Amino acid sequence: MKFLFINGVNLNMTGVREKGVYGTQTLDEINLEISKHFKNDICEFYQSNSEGDICTAIQEASGFDGIILNAGAYTHYSYAIRDAIASVSVPVVEVHMSNVHAREEFRHKSVLSEVCKGVICGFGMNSYILAAESFKL
Amino acid sequence: MKFLFINGVNLNMTGVREKGVYGTQTLDEINLEISKHFKNDICEFYQSNSEGDICTAIQEASGFDGIILNAGAYTHYSYAIRDAIASVSVPVVEVHMSNVHAREEFRHKSVLSEVCKGVICGFGMNSYILAAESFKL
Amino acid sequence: MKFLFINGVNLNMTGVREKGVYGTQTLDEINLEISKHFKNDICEFYQSNSEGDICTAIQEASGFDGIILNAGAYTHYSYAIRDAIASVSVPVVEVHMSNVHAREEFRHKSVLSEVCKGVICGFGMNSYILAAESFKL
Amino acid sequence: MKFLFINGVNLNMTGVREKGVYGTQTLDEINLEISKHFKNDICEFYQSNSEGDICTAIQEASGFDGIILNAGAYTHYSYAIRDAIASVSVPVVEVHMSNVHAREEFRHKSVLSEVCKGVICGFGMNSYILAAESFKL
Amino acid sequence: MKFLFINGVNLNMTGVREKGVYGTQTLDEINLEISKHFKNDICEFYQSNSEGDICTAIQEASGFDGIILNAGAYTHYSYAIRDAIASVSVPVVEVHMSNVHAREEFRHKSVLSEVCKGVICGFGMNSYILAAESFKL
Amino acid sequence: MKFLFINGVNLNMTGVREKGVYGTQTLDEINLEISKHFKNDICEFYQSNSEGDICTAIQEASGFDGIILNAGAYTHYSYAIRDAIASVSVPVVEVHMSNVHAREEFRHKSVLSEVCKGVICGFGMNSYILAAESFKL
Amino acid sequence: MKFLFINGVNLNMTGVREKGVYGTQTLDEINLEISKHFKNDICEFYQSNSEGDICTAIQEASGFDGIILNAGAYTHYSYAIRDAIASVSVPVVEVHMSNVHAREEFRHKSVLSEVCKGVICGFGMNSYILAAESFKL
Amino acid sequence: MKFLFINGVNLNMTGVREKGVYGTQTLDEINLEISKHFKNDICEFYQSNSEGDICTAIQEASGFDGIILNAGAYTHYSYAIRDAIASVSVPVVEVHMSNVHAREEFRHKSVLSEVCKGVICGFGMNSYILAAESFKL
Amino acid sequence: MKFLFINGVNLNMTGVREKGVYGTQTLDEINLEISKHFKNDICEFYQSNSEGDICTAIQEASGFDGIILNAGAYTHYSYAIRDAIASVSVPVVEVHMSNVHAREEFRHKSVLSEVCKGVICGFGMNSYILAAESFKL
Amino acid sequence: MKFLFINGVNLNMTGVREKGVYGTQTLDEINLEISKHFKNDICEFYQSNSEGDICTAIQEASGFDGIILNAGAYTHYSYAIRDAIASVSVPVVEVHMSNVHAREEFRHKSVLSEVCKGVICGFGMNSYILAAESFKL
Amino acid sequence: MKFLFINGVNLNMTGVREKGVYGTQTLDEINLEISKHFKNDICEFYQSNSEGDICTAIQEASGFDGIILNAGAYTHYSYAIRDAIASVSVPVVEVHMSNVHAREEFRHKSVLSEVCKGVICGFGMNSYILAAESFKL
Amino acid sequence: MKFLFINGVNLNMTGVREKGVYGTQTLDEINLEISKHFKNDICEFYQSNSEGDICTAIQEASGFDGIILNAGAYTHYSYAIRDAIASVSVPVVEVHMSNVHAREEFRHKSVLSEVCKGVICGFGMNSYILAAESFKL
Repeated sequence: MKFLFINGVNLNMTGVREKGVYGTQTLDEINLEISKHFKNDICEFYQSNSEGDICTAIQEASGFDGIILNAGAYTHYSYAIRDAIASVSVPVVEVHMSNVHAREEFRHKSVLSEVCKGVICGFGMNSYILAAESFKL
Repeated sequence: MKFLFINGVNLNMTGVREKGVYGTQTLDEINLEISKHFKNDICEFYQSNSEGDICTAIQEASGFDGIILNAGAYTHYSYAIRDAIASVSVPVVEVHMSNVHAREEFRHKSVLSEVCKGVICGFGMNSYILAAESFKL
Repeated sequence: MKFLFINGVNLNMTGVREKGVYGTQTLDEINLEISKHFKNDICEFYQSNSEGDICTAIQEASGFDGIILNAGAYTHYSYAIRDAIASVSVPVVEVHMSNVHAREEFRHKSVLSEVCKGVICGFGMNSYILAAESFKL
Repeated sequence: MKFLFINGVNLNMTGVREKGVYGTQTLDEINLEISKHFKNDICEFYQSNSEGDICTAIQEASGFDGIILNAGAYTHYSYAIRDAIASVSVPVVEVHMSNVHAREEFRHKSVLSEVCKGVICGFGMNSYILAAESFKL
Repeated sequence: MKFLFINGVNLNMTGVREKGVYGTQTLDEINLEISKHFKNDICEFYQSNSEGDICTAIQEASGFDGIILNAGAYTHYSYAIRDAIASVSVPVVEVHMSNVHAREEFRHKSVLSEVCKGVICGFGMNSYILAAESFKL
Repeated sequence: MKFLFINGVNLNMTGVREKGVYGTQTLDEINLEISKHFKNDICEFYQSNSEGDICTAIQEASGFDGIILNAGAYTHYSYAIRDAIASVSVPVVEVHMSNVHAREEFRHKSVLSEVCKGVICGFGMNSYILAAESFKL
Repeated sequence: MKFLFINGVNLNMTGVREKGVYGTQTLDEINLEISKHFKNDICEFYQSNSEGDICTAIQEASGFDGIILNAGAYTHYSYAIRDAIASVSVPVVEVHMSNVHAREEFRHKSVLSEVCKGVICGFGMNSYILAAESFKL
Repeated sequence: MKFLFINGVNLNMTGVREKGVYGTQTLDEINLEISKHFKNDICEFYQSNSEGDICTAIQEASGFDGIILNAGAYTHYSYAIRDAIASVSVPVVEVHMSNVHAREEFRHKSVLSEVCKGVICGFGMNSYILAAESFKL
Repeated sequence: MKFLFINGVNLNMTGVREKGVYGTQTLDEINLEISKHFKNDICEFYQSNSEGDICTAIQEASGFDGIILNAGAYTHYSYAIRDAIASVSVPVVEVHMSNVHAREEFRHKSVLSEVCKGVICGFGMNSYILAAESFKL
Repeated sequence: MKFLFINGVNLNMTGVREKGVYGTQTLDEINLEISKHFKNDICEFYQSNSEGDICTAIQEASGFDGIILNAGAYTHYSYAIRDAIASVSVPVVEVHMSNVHAREEFRHKSVLSEVCKGVICGFGMNSYILAAESFKL
Repeated sequence: MKFLFINGVNLNMTGVREKGVYGTQTLDEINLEISKHFKNDICEFYQSNSEGDICTAIQEASGFDGIILNAGAYTHYSYAIRDAIASVSVPVVEVHMSNVHAREEFRHKSVLSEVCKGVICGFGMNSYILAAESFKL
Repeated sequence: MKFLFINGVNLNMTGVREKGVYGTQTLDEINLEISKHFKNDICEFYQSNSEGDICTAIQEASGFDGIILNAGAYTHYSYAIRDAIASVSVPVVEVHMSNVHAREEFRHKSVLSEVCKGVICGFGMNSYILAAESFKL
């Protein structure tokens, strides 16, 4: 299978910022572990701080079997990304490393979930792995 | 490992009611598939329509490695179940077969998520499997 | 025809509590009058204070032509009962003896109405009779 | 007995508009059926699109045993009609043909219910008949 | 083509009241300009301060190709007019001369828009002309 | 001076309905007392249950020194009457016989007050007299 | 008759501050005019910036026929003054010189009105005079 | 005197869960201390996780001088328990061991308080003792 | 022990105002009864209508074992008193004689409770006694 | 005349995504039709998924007679684009192809409308044409 | 220049209470440091727990070049102080030592800011110094 | 010291747009004045209309002593920038040239303030200078 892992704004700081919340692995290290886990599948990774670029990345993902999307803070207000998800036929699974429901109030609401296939949060880097696994069950 | 799968109110009607939403497998058939998937682990299954009995089941789950909880409609208002989760040290993963965020407004809010380890929704019966898998990663 | 009259929480206190609101007839006396009114039909009566048991009663009502449901205070927050109603094909009519809209604010909102066939309130014990009559018109 | 059936705004379009919601009987045909049902009672029928005229009709209904009122969309915001109901001693039963709670959000709230004797909705043209029957029980 | 221009409450005061907002042309002068613009089409004009009469006018517009409706203040709360629009098959375009979104908060919400074909506001008397033009494109 | 007293919906029932709130004087008796009080001024009286007719009455009041307006229940939602008041240069004083702030929640909000010269409530029929007196001070 | 005129916080700045809103007369000048108007009555005047002192003044007003109260900004949040009004049998009329409903949002809500006899606003210094006149009608 | 102490959902976990909040005494130990404190009175103790059973317990408490009720999480949404309290003449005192106002937002609102005699919270196990003492003063 | 009983705004009117709510004992009589009850302890009493003075009284209470505070209407909006409580190490118990939850909506919210040790309401003058007793258990 | 047509996020997917809502014409085909319609005017077209770039495009539009702006999902939350519109003197007309008021709740609110000259929605690609026509009337 | 530093309720407890938030310097020590910093300017200091006295202090500040105001908890609800600020021509800068936006929800809203020249918060005692510096730039 | 001044969306239009609000100095002129004021410090300036680029700029600011951030309209909804601020250890001061609290409602709320060191607004270009000065006190 062929997966696209999209990480949104500030996720390039994973392993650097707020280690209490996100752990100490960097995004590159996480991506490497994911690649190892799915060594028989094709895993592509994309990260951007730009809302518009994330939309474009989703629009252009037509060849993939599934998108695993951690939009970061954009999760909570980007109707643009929501519309991008709705505009493609590739199924999207929304993921978060932390349990967003146990954090600030504004993180409890996702404007993306309604148009995603499913949502997985709270399992650290394993959220990505479980999301990709969901396509293989 | 030893897992406790708790299904709440009306989930005994799975495969019977609203097949468009929940599919045609009955809860027994789903549980059987889960057992097969985790054939090297111990899987126990509990279903009740009673909010209080679900609380009691959680309170008495001390020997398990993890609880996979689909509380049904209680998800959205049972602070009793929330407190039961908070009162035990066994980690609980909240699951839903459907993508609750794509359904009625009242299903978008879970009062349980904040005290769970993580949340998985939208993958049909695979939501249960992914939740249990999360303990093995 | 075959009717199931379900009375929810505290309705066993009818005729005992708050007589100004509910009158002085006990639930047994009311049920007797209903039976007399529908002497050519089969009337079964069920009362429970337990939200879960009410759900179960609804789930198991498959042989009836109609359910007449007065859920008591559960009317205003039990999404569990709502889902139980939605899970069966037997039509349910929601009834209240008092005019709930002329009482406390919290009684103005029913979470059940959307999935019921219709709603009747304000006619004392006649609310039950009108509800059952609705199936015969 | 002597009944006044008041139909409010747009109910003259019944059987014409939105047949999926209201059926294919016209208001005249419905009124005829009601008259037949209560052939031993006096049934008067009034329809108006004017909020003020509906108020006047209610004010002048002093000779009737009961008013059966379907105010149409005015149900949801006409405090004028509400005050008219409160200004007369004739009891008023609020009716709706459709189950308003299963339709748009704005139809879930009635500003009239608090000052009516009771509310009946969801039974098509039988809502009118049940409402009038309520005066005869 | 055959157009019906309906102007609601207080629009008979156009050119008289609040000239800063609505300009100095009277409604008759505006209607004359519209007639000139669509000199090859049939333009009928109706104005009323009465909510009920506006509903009736819409109900009776079956012979027109399109209704251009400026309901005035009724725009913001008349679910009666909304239902009247929904009860006819003639398409309705909602218009406002001023940009209602740049005025008082209560003018930002229209209860009519959802059941109209489209909405045009902010172009003075040209709002009417653009609305009618929309039927000719 | 020349005053126009406009009474809105259901005020023709004054002295008839809810005597605990409004007293036992009829509107005609009240108007007579007002006329006596202002015997050296011209007092005209208008009552209508129709929102649109009240708007028209206000629009046509150009010859008066002041309008004393008790719009009844329309006070709380008629943006149509509000716009009518704003469309004329004659000053309008809003009056209520009862203290609306000591009654139901929906009567606490007036959509008219912002465009009136002033508001007087709570003094029974003297509210009208004080309002007219305000123009003579 | 014997009147107590209580002016609350910042009203000692009348005629000094925001002359566009309150005019150019000082509070002393206003009080003098009121005294002249009611030259056959006893008028006492009290002004304080202290919420507690205003409460005390109301508590101690037992000998007066009426209190005319302009509480200034305290009008909008002082439940303390509200309780003071409710604790005495002397009737209180709430007044405001400006039309508070045409000013900032926070001035639209009075927490005092419910326990006052009536409310008068929008007539400049004449608001005080009309309020006192209300006791003489 | 004869007291009934009712403990609701999850209170059987007292002394086990969240010891930082509730202390280390188990419910049995607490009950024992209460019994010792009121050694000249009759103290009965009831605990249940079931909302319906708590309602039944309240309904059947007719022989007691007072009920001391800690409903646990049901405090915040159980209108069923509220109605049960209203249906009996035995006075009920609502108690909480912790200061619920210093905890999560959802614990700040009790739907029971309005129909109880009084409320006591924040004194650990002494909340029970003070509540029972209140009947002896 | 040494207790400071602080009574806030309008509580000097106890036994005078609204006897239906507060009984007929004056504050002095209540204080005397409290003194008798705690005849082996030192009881000081302070009453003020001034929000600022109540803050000062709390700030200066450092020698006491406990403060029993009935802030009256300030309870519902005085963040100033809240901060005063938080600024001292003496524990404060919030009390109300009436059951504030059974009265007006605005009395249901206390801005003080979060920073108090506990809350007691509904027991008349015994609320003070129970609050002081809480320090001796 | 010289027009700038700005299309925001995901509008490059027009004719590709959600054809039920947007039709089957691609953005290029739509732009071509617009150009043909205004063959005597200069039409420039700009599309971007980037909120910042849309702001920049608006800032640099000083030479145009009018901007026709379809901001896509940014319409509903981009105060950045709003400020960009307010920062230029070129008038901007807000357009939407679909009737946004008949779609999801979040699309009913535009943060741009207040600073635009006018709004046109619901006419498919003709929304653009009517908007540009508005500058020529 | 001549500055008036006004400190509101509980700020006399600075350096005493909640040292984690406010540091260990007392208000006198802070004032001394401010005086040293502005040794070539005239600095006057005023502190009061009384809302009314703070209003009076602002009203009487006419000779100053600027007021630096830390109103403490009154910041969040004192429309009285707001009106006092609006009643004087001396510019007022609102300051807070802590970053109020990182504290309790109720501290996020200031009713004073709208009528102040500017706001500075989060810099400890330097908030005062920066505010005064603002007048010298 | 080394300061990074980040200006967000539309601030490149300062001195061009809305001169009544922002004055006539361009951003370059403002930056020049700031540089002169801090001629012994290192001042770097960055402006972007792109939310993502502003996040990146903050992420890469590790060598600076402080960031002075005016995010423009992004202030009010960019949780992305909020997270970027939280991800770096360099302290950030939020600034606004205008007093945002005296402008439109949507500008009263900042989603950034909670994670900044402090906030300064209302002092025109001096807001930047005061913010940088705050690091030197």
